[in-house]
Amino acid sequence: MIIDCHGHYTTAPKELQAYRDAQVAALKTRSSASPAPAKGTVHISDDQIRESLENAQLKFQRERGTDVTVFSPRASAMAHHIGDATTSLHWTEHCNDLIHRVCTLYPDNFVGVCQLPQSPGVPPAACIPELERCVNELGFIGCNLNPDPSGGHWTAPPLTDRSWYPLYEKMIDLDVPAMVHVSSSCNPNFHATGAHYLNADTTAFMQFLTADLFKDLPALRFIIPHGGGAVPYHWGRYRGLAQDLKRPPLGDLIRDHVFFDTCVYHQPGIDLLLNVVPVDNILFGSEMVGAVRGIDPETGHYFDDTKRYLDGVAWLSDQDRYKLFEGNARKVYPRINVALRAGQVGRVGQVGQVGQA
Amino acid sequence: MIIDCHGHYTTAPKELQAYRDAQVAALKTRSSASPAPAKGTVHISDDQIRESLENAQLKFQRERGTDVTVFSPRASAMAHHIGDATTSLHWTEHCNDLIHRVCTLYPDNFVGVCQLPQSPGVPPAACIPELERCVNELGFIGCNLNPDPSGGHWTAPPLTDRSWYPLYEKMIDLDVPAMVHVSSSCNPNFHATGAHYLNADTTAFMQFLTADLFKDLPALRFIIPHGGGAVPYHWGRYRGLAQDLKRPPLGDLIRDHVFFDTCVYHQPGIDLLLNVVPVDNILFGSEMVGAVRGIDPETGHYFDDTKRYLDGVAWLSDQDRYKLFEGNARKVYPRINVALRAGQVGRVGQVGQVGQA
Repeated sequence: MIIDCHGHYTTAPKELQAYRDAQVAALKTRSSASPAPAKGTVHISDDQIRESLENAQLKFQRERGTDVTVFSPRASAMAHHIGDATTSLHWTEHCNDLIHRVCTLYPDNFVGVCQLPQSPGVPPAACIPELERCVNELGFIGCNLNPDPSGGHWTAPPLTDRSWYPLYEKMIDLDVPAMVHVSSSCNPNFHATGAHYLNADTTAFMQFLTADLFKDLPALRFIIPHGGGAVPYHWGRYRGLAQDLKRPPLGDLIRDHVFFDTCVYHQPGIDLLLNVVPVDNILFGSEMVGAVRGIDPETGHYFDDTKRYLDGVAWLSDQDRYKLFEGNARKVYPRINVALRAGQVGRVGQVGQVGQA
Repeated sequence: MIIDCHGHYTTAPKELQAYRDAQVAALKTRSSASPAPAKGTVHISDDQIRESLENAQLKFQRERGTDVTVFSPRASAMAHHIGDATTSLHWTEHCNDLIHRVCTLYPDNFVGVCQLPQSPGVPPAACIPELERCVNELGFIGCNLNPDPSGGHWTAPPLTDRSWYPLYEKMIDLDVPAMVHVSSSCNPNFHATGAHYLNADTTAFMQFLTADLFKDLPALRFIIPHGGGAVPYHWGRYRGLAQDLKRPPLGDLIRDHVFFDTCVYHQPGIDLLLNVVPVDNILFGSEMVGAVRGIDPETGHYFDDTKRYLDGVAWLSDQDRYKLFEGNARKVYPRINVALRAGQVGRVGQVGQVGQA
C-alpha cells in the first residue's frame, strides 16, 4: 500500500469559497454592537464532491499508483489571521466536515487530518474541542498546526513555548501527530508557497533543536512538510549548530519526534533528502494537487509526482521502500490503521450487498 | 587565486562590543529632550587587530589554502532594529572603519564590504552617503543589504519595492553588488543563524522571482548567501512556480543578477548546489569564522571548511574551478580587481623599502 501523507482539498467545490467570501465580507460591515455572527451553512452535494476529486486527486492516485492520501483542508485557505476565534472556528468546522464527507465517500482513498481553529493571540488550548471532535467523532488521524497564525508576522510564541503544551498533551492523549503547516501570508515579503511555507518548516526545526520539548513530552510527534524546508540541504549546518549549542545529535533529536515528507519537486533534492535523513524519519508525500501544478519540461512529468523521484533512487531496499511508502505513516499516524480497517469493513459490507442484489 | 566571498569580522577586539554596549545602554536612559548622542570613539590598536586575526581568519586562510576574503562587519551585530537612524549610522561607521583598517593592514588578505546604516522605517536611500564613503574613500567593493531591518518582524517592503531603487541605482553607479544578509533576530521564533538567515535567503529569492526588478535595473547584482537558503534544494519547486506564474525560467532570472555562495556545510549539500545551479552563478564562500565553529566528527574537519567540499566534487573542470574560486568573484565584484592591484602595488613598495634598508 502506498500512503501519501500530504494532500489538501485544493479542489473543493466553489461553494466553499463562496461561504468564506461571505464570511469575510460580513466581518467588514460588523460593528461591535452586532450580535455574534451565525455559523451559516455550506451547500455542497455528494455529486459535487465526487466531481471535484474524480479528475484531480483520484485521477492522480490512479495514474501515479498511490493508494491512500492523508487529506486535510486547503492549507493556504486556513488563514487564521482573518477575523477572530469565532470566524476561525466556523470556517474550520465547515472545512473539516467537508473532509469528513470526502473520507466517507471514498474510505479507501482518503483519511482525514483536521485544520485547527487557531486565532492570533488565542491560546492554542482553545483548539482542543475541535481536535477531539475530529478524531473521536469524524475518525481523523492527525491535525495541521500553524506555527504562525498571524499569517507572516510571527507574533505567536515559538512551538516550544508552554502555551502550546495543553494542545500537545491532547494530541498525545489521542495518539495523533501534527503536521507543522502555515497558511497564506498577509505579509508582502513572503510568497506563500515559495517562501512562507519553507521558512516555517526551517523555523520549526530550529525551534525543536534548541528546546527540551521532546524531553518534556516524549510521545509528541511532528511532521515537517516540504521536505523539511531548508533543513536537509543544510544538514551539516544543523549538525554543527547542535554540537556548538551542546544539544543532542540530530538523529537523537528527530528519532521518535520529527518526520519529513517528500514534497521536494526534483530528483537531486530527493536524493539529498534520502542521503542525509534517516529513512525512518521520512514519509512519502506529494501535496498534490497543490503548490506546483505544472509538468516539468525537463522530465515530461508533473513536478509534484514525487513517487517517481523515490522510484528513481536505486539504492533503496525493499524494507526502505516499505517504510517510506507505508510503514512510517502507520507508525506516525497510528490511527490510520483503524481508519483503513474501517474503510475495508465498509467496502466488504457494500460488496456483500451488491452480491445479494 | 582563491577568493572567499563571505567573511565577517566576528573576532573583532572586545573594545568594539564595549562601544556598542555603551551605545545601547545610553539609549535606555535617553529622554526626548536629550541632545543628539555623540558618535563617540572606539580605541583599538593595530596590534589588537593583528592579534584578533592571526589565530583566526588568517590562520584558516593559510591552513585551508585560500588567499583573499571579502570581509565585512559581523552580520549578527549589525542589529539595525536597535535605536534609530543615528544609532545605526554611528555604529555602522565605526564597524566599516574597522574593516578598512583590517584591509589596510592586510591588503593581500582582505578586501572590504560595508554594513549599511539601515533603520526600520527609514528609506534605504538614507544609506547612500555611507555606501559612497566606503566605496570611494575606503576602497570597498560591495555592501551587505538587510532585507529585514526590523530583526525578524519583516516590516520593511520587499526588496523589489521602489523604495529600494535609489540605493540600487547608486550601487549600479558605483558598480558594486549587495549580499542579501539579515542580522540578529529579536523575534523569539527565529534563531539567527539556524532560521532567520536561511529564511531571508529563501524569501529574497522568491521576491526576485515574482517581480520585474532586473528588467527595471539590468545592471543590479545580488549575492544570496548560505548557499541560497532553501532554494537549490527546492530548485524543482522554484522552476515549477516560475512556470505556473508565467515568470522567466530560473536560468534567465539569475544569469546576470543573482549569485549563491557555497556556505553549505556538508558534502551532499554542496553536491546538490553544483548539480542544479549554473556554475557561473556560484561564488566560493565559507563565512569563516562564523555560524558554525566546530569540527565535524564525521569528517574530522571544520564544518565551515567549504573549500574541501568543492575539492571533493570530481566532475568540476579547471574552468569551473577558476570560476568558483576566482573568476565569478571578479565578475560580480569588479572593484576587487582594483583593490587587489592596489594591494600588490603597496606590497611591492614595501618590499622595495625593505631592500633599501
